[in-house]
Amino acid sequence: VLPIAVDAMGGDRAPAEIVAGAVRAARELGAPVVLVGQPEALATLDTAGVEIVPASEVIGMHEDPALGVRRKKDSSLVRAAEAVRDGRASAMVSAGNTGAAMASALLRMGRLPGVGRPAVAIPVPVPVAGATPTILLDAGANAECTAEWLVQFAQMGSALASLRYGIADPGVALLSIGEEATKGSPVVKEAHALLAAGAGVRFIGNVEGRDIMSDAADVVVTDGFTGNVTLKTMEGSLRALVGAVMGAMQATDETRRAAEVLMPHLLPLYRSLDPDNTGGALLLGVNGVCIISHGSSSSLAIFNAVRVALEMVEGDLVPQLAKVISPV
Amino acid sequence: VLPIAVDAMGGDRAPAEIVAGAVRAARELGAPVVLVGQPEALATLDTAGVEIVPASEVIGMHEDPALGVRRKKDSSLVRAAEAVRDGRASAMVSAGNTGAAMASALLRMGRLPGVGRPAVAIPVPVPVAGATPTILLDAGANAECTAEWLVQFAQMGSALASLRYGIADPGVALLSIGEEATKGSPVVKEAHALLAAGAGVRFIGNVEGRDIMSDAADVVVTDGFTGNVTLKTMEGSLRALVGAVMGAMQATDETRRAAEVLMPHLLPLYRSLDPDNTGGALLLGVNGVCIISHGSSSSLAIFNAVRVALEMVEGDLVPQLAKVISPV
Repeated sequence: VLPIAVDAMGGDRAPAEIVAGAVRAARELGAPVVLVGQPEALATLDTAGVEIVPASEVIGMHEDPALGVRRKKDSSLVRAAEAVRDGRASAMVSAGNTGAAMASALLRMGRLPGVGRPAVAIPVPVPVAGATPTILLDAGANAECTAEWLVQFAQMGSALASLRYGIADPGVALLSIGEEATKGSPVVKEAHALLAAGAGVRFIGNVEGRDIMSDAADVVVTDGFTGNVTLKTMEGSLRALVGAVMGAMQATDETRRAAEVLMPHLLPLYRSLDPDNTGGALLLGVNGVCIISHGSSSSLAIFNAVRVALEMVEGDLVPQLAKVISPV
Repeated sequence: VLPIAVDAMGGDRAPAEIVAGAVRAARELGAPVVLVGQPEALATLDTAGVEIVPASEVIGMHEDPALGVRRKKDSSLVRAAEAVRDGRASAMVSAGNTGAAMASALLRMGRLPGVGRPAVAIPVPVPVAGATPTILLDAGANAECTAEWLVQFAQMGSALASLRYGIADPGVALLSIGEEATKGSPVVKEAHALLAAGAGVRFIGNVEGRDIMSDAADVVVTDGFTGNVTLKTMEGSLRALVGAVMGAMQATDETRRAAEVLMPHLLPLYRSLDPDNTGGALLLGVNGVCIISHGSSSSLAIFNAVRVALEMVEGDLVPQLAKVISPV
């Protein structure tokens, strides 16, 4: 396996946490990694002998993605994507500017043949015993989508669910505002018809927002606007509820003691919902493995992102996707 | 105040729970109510002398809304809306078929002059001490919206926040996938420009999904597709998390005892998130007060819906909305 190129400069906690996560993945998983970034910044950290691919520039977390990628040709993000394009790396991992990570991957690696638009696929944890996460896509790459792109998202999501979670014939659903084929926007209705007519996936129909964090579907397909709003709504409502529960637990000495008893049983749940444990989002439809971790990624998040990148490379994700796509 | 027309036949638990809630509102609040429905069905229940407006038909929960309203002219939903139109009632309340309730109100009461489309406004609980709910609209009436309609939703939502929660100058936000004006779909960007140019509301810019259940904004505006998906995503993620926490609490005898200690402190939180306590959604932009409760409404939900209907009638909601609308 070729090395996994980790953008050492991207993320709110870069480069220290990124380097720590990459080094841990190299040590514990034997993952071949290279760190892409400014040599002078990385020289202050313990990189444990991991190879450094120099890149003199950094695209900031709030910089305009398209401009950043165009102007900063020697940025860590652009160089990481080029390493994959040029066959020097097997995958890229970044916790940096999400838009710039997508643009770098798209512009440097290019799209898989026949793919209309790449999509961000994110695993949504399902707090039900034995359930695998629900893969939600597109989680934010394309604010507007055609029905044909949604069909491709269904095909790519299904292939990812098989590879990542070992699901033989994943149930793929379309996110809408009612189960009936007649519900939703014109694009959703058109996509429903195309999927129902047969698109090489096991289409189980429409699902609603309440079904995402359940075991109703293995893959939930939507446009990038709805997907991004949905994802952040889940994050926000879980954070609000966890905060309120924590507050109630601090009410009295008695509740604090009760909370201590419960904590060992609540921690596994809390961990299962922590995005640091899910391994990050995948950009599907580009000609290479690209993992985009959230901006606040810790070393654990990067460790898990490298782990998933390695699994996807070893499982031949990109060839699998190329095989299932109906070209547009 | 004219009576509030309660659709006695609509909802999964109709007519018993509906009647019980309406009767309780009449008794405890002195609210003037009439029950609209099949006299023979209501004769078996204790209606406590509340007037009954006869309607021989019922539009089923899963019936096609447009067809149902067109064909069942003597249904409880249509008759309730007609009572408002004809000045025999001041408001309608229904836990029935949501689409049919919207269609009845729209077709019988008509739109307020200048309103492009009515919108469903729903209060989203914010589990932060002292915070008022966030009003989210449109929560499902219009799967596709123009920018001008979104501006009207902002104006109507702002007026509702003032009237319902006593907020002097509500902060109104647009739901998008980033705070920048350049983020989102073309319609969202256009609506952003219109609101920023001045539309008679205090526009605070874009918010993301994670901000809805926080005190970031008093009103969050979106199209009915995104709003409905968002609302159901919140319901689903809260249900999943509460279920998982309850499961963890049942792990051992010790955790069950700890849970008993915590329960009195968690119950107020649980109640604050229970849609039965929020008073239901309002259909804004029709020429009358129309409250749409969720299908599984208990008597408590109907009691609260009647309470809110009364407040909205006494506070002159409809004239207030007419005043703030920029006609399209």
